[in-house]
Amino acid sequence: MNFIAKLTAASKLNHSLLCVGLDPDVAKFPAELQGKSDAIFIFCKAIIDATADLACAFKPQIAYFAALAAEDQLQAICDYLRQTYPQIPIILDAKRGDIGATAEQYAREAFERYDADAVTVNPYMGFDSVAPYLEWKDRGAIVLCRTSNPGGSDLQFLKVDGVPLYQHVAKLVAEKWNLNGQCGLVVGATFPQELAEVRKIVGDMPLLVPGIGAQGGDIAATVQAGQTATGAGMMINSSRAILYARPDGVESFVEAARRVALETRDAINLYRTTQEI
Amino acid sequence: MNFIAKLTAASKLNHSLLCVGLDPDVAKFPAELQGKSDAIFIFCKAIIDATADLACAFKPQIAYFAALAAEDQLQAICDYLRQTYPQIPIILDAKRGDIGATAEQYAREAFERYDADAVTVNPYMGFDSVAPYLEWKDRGAIVLCRTSNPGGSDLQFLKVDGVPLYQHVAKLVAEKWNLNGQCGLVVGATFPQELAEVRKIVGDMPLLVPGIGAQGGDIAATVQAGQTATGAGMMINSSRAILYARPDGVESFVEAARRVALETRDAINLYRTTQEI
Repeated sequence: MNFIAKLTAASKLNHSLLCVGLDPDVAKFPAELQGKSDAIFIFCKAIIDATADLACAFKPQIAYFAALAAEDQLQAICDYLRQTYPQIPIILDAKRGDIGATAEQYAREAFERYDADAVTVNPYMGFDSVAPYLEWKDRGAIVLCRTSNPGGSDLQFLKVDGVPLYQHVAKLVAEKWNLNGQCGLVVGATFPQELAEVRKIVGDMPLLVPGIGAQGGDIAATVQAGQTATGAGMMINSSRAILYARPDGVESFVEAARRVALETRDAINLYRTTQEI
Repeated sequence: MNFIAKLTAASKLNHSLLCVGLDPDVAKFPAELQGKSDAIFIFCKAIIDATADLACAFKPQIAYFAALAAEDQLQAICDYLRQTYPQIPIILDAKRGDIGATAEQYAREAFERYDADAVTVNPYMGFDSVAPYLEWKDRGAIVLCRTSNPGGSDLQFLKVDGVPLYQHVAKLVAEKWNLNGQCGLVVGATFPQELAEVRKIVGDMPLLVPGIGAQGGDIAATVQAGQTATGAGMMINSSRAILYARPDGVESFVEAARRVALETRDAINLYRTTQEI
């Protein structure tokens, strides 16, 4: 099963457009995990077990592992996900971008070493920097388009023939790069109008949407702007708001994470047009 | 000593604008290294020892290590470089690009874990995706501007107010991002006229220039287009042409690498305007 089919199936199974981001920041871990050599694995496994019936995808952010030389724990997390929840796709958030020969190496990292279903990539170096990922026919490449950070406008909002650069990227990917239906786009939740513009350009292509939760995007506006005609086509990511949910009374961090994930999934579903939820 | 000062000193010491790229492709290693568990370290150490008096910088490409789960060997190479050749800067070629909180993690990877002097970064996500690297005041961030691969034109040559995007990036970095003189730019050798345009925009800022050697750029045109008024300001990278030089008669791969590095350094120096070489 290819990435898009797996994502669609997971989304239907769990009635969910919620992507759970795994950004393990050790300093924010609960006291009982501090000082353990495999704290990252234990933490992420607990989050995964608490939310696997609520998510359409899991998205580990590789920078948090790389900073701590914890690639072995990322490997263990991916192994655990594939063995225990094989129905849920893994998106490796790495935002890679390099010339073809180097991109081949990064594709091996994502799809062979970690066996992820999809990887995020950067469009700045053009098609041949993305093509090596697409050689892996059952995997996906999710291309940065419009990002939710403050500096996202520095380049992405520059006007090319009167149209912002991010819309050119959306067109390029939809019309030229997405030859085999393997691509998605990253479009932030903090600009719903722009999300709607991208949706118009790309048809039913899946959009990975960061920026709700800790980054402050509005769920109703995000879903209404980004969903397809059948109320699908989105992976709405939440990382910090779930991972570091403030325990409510006697909850553990795991219970707090599940509560926030459930609330977020259901809040998203409120605004979906589909009758199938 | 900060990155730019260290680079300038190494360049003067070795009379060199040559950056030796470390892209260890195990399939291309000599027979005597095949099958060894630390083949990457042995290979790179041999290349480093053979060229350390000819280079202004070494540039390990992290993708080749990540594909093989060989981060420990990258660590060993960086440790060896710092201990044995502390005068030569290490540029970690990683082309990172992510939101601020994530970029902080990537900066720790580059500057704390590997203790590199500089890292390559992608501008697509804007200033706050680059700023965390600049918090490390003695380190450098080398921003992608105009890349030498075929797809480099897909985005970089789009016209914004009549000017190609890559020139906007050069202006942004020169005028706004380079607050403390820590930035460089990546500008490919395959377009000397564009290299000259960038040089006009950025003053004396160092340019990392891939694309000679295996990628076919012309050395004379590259140096004439990219050098500063004093014949400096460039790190002209060669990776594959040095690492996998075809041994000439009875040479070892190490001798072949040294011969090509020496020829390349000297060919570059022929076209420098300075009298100090």
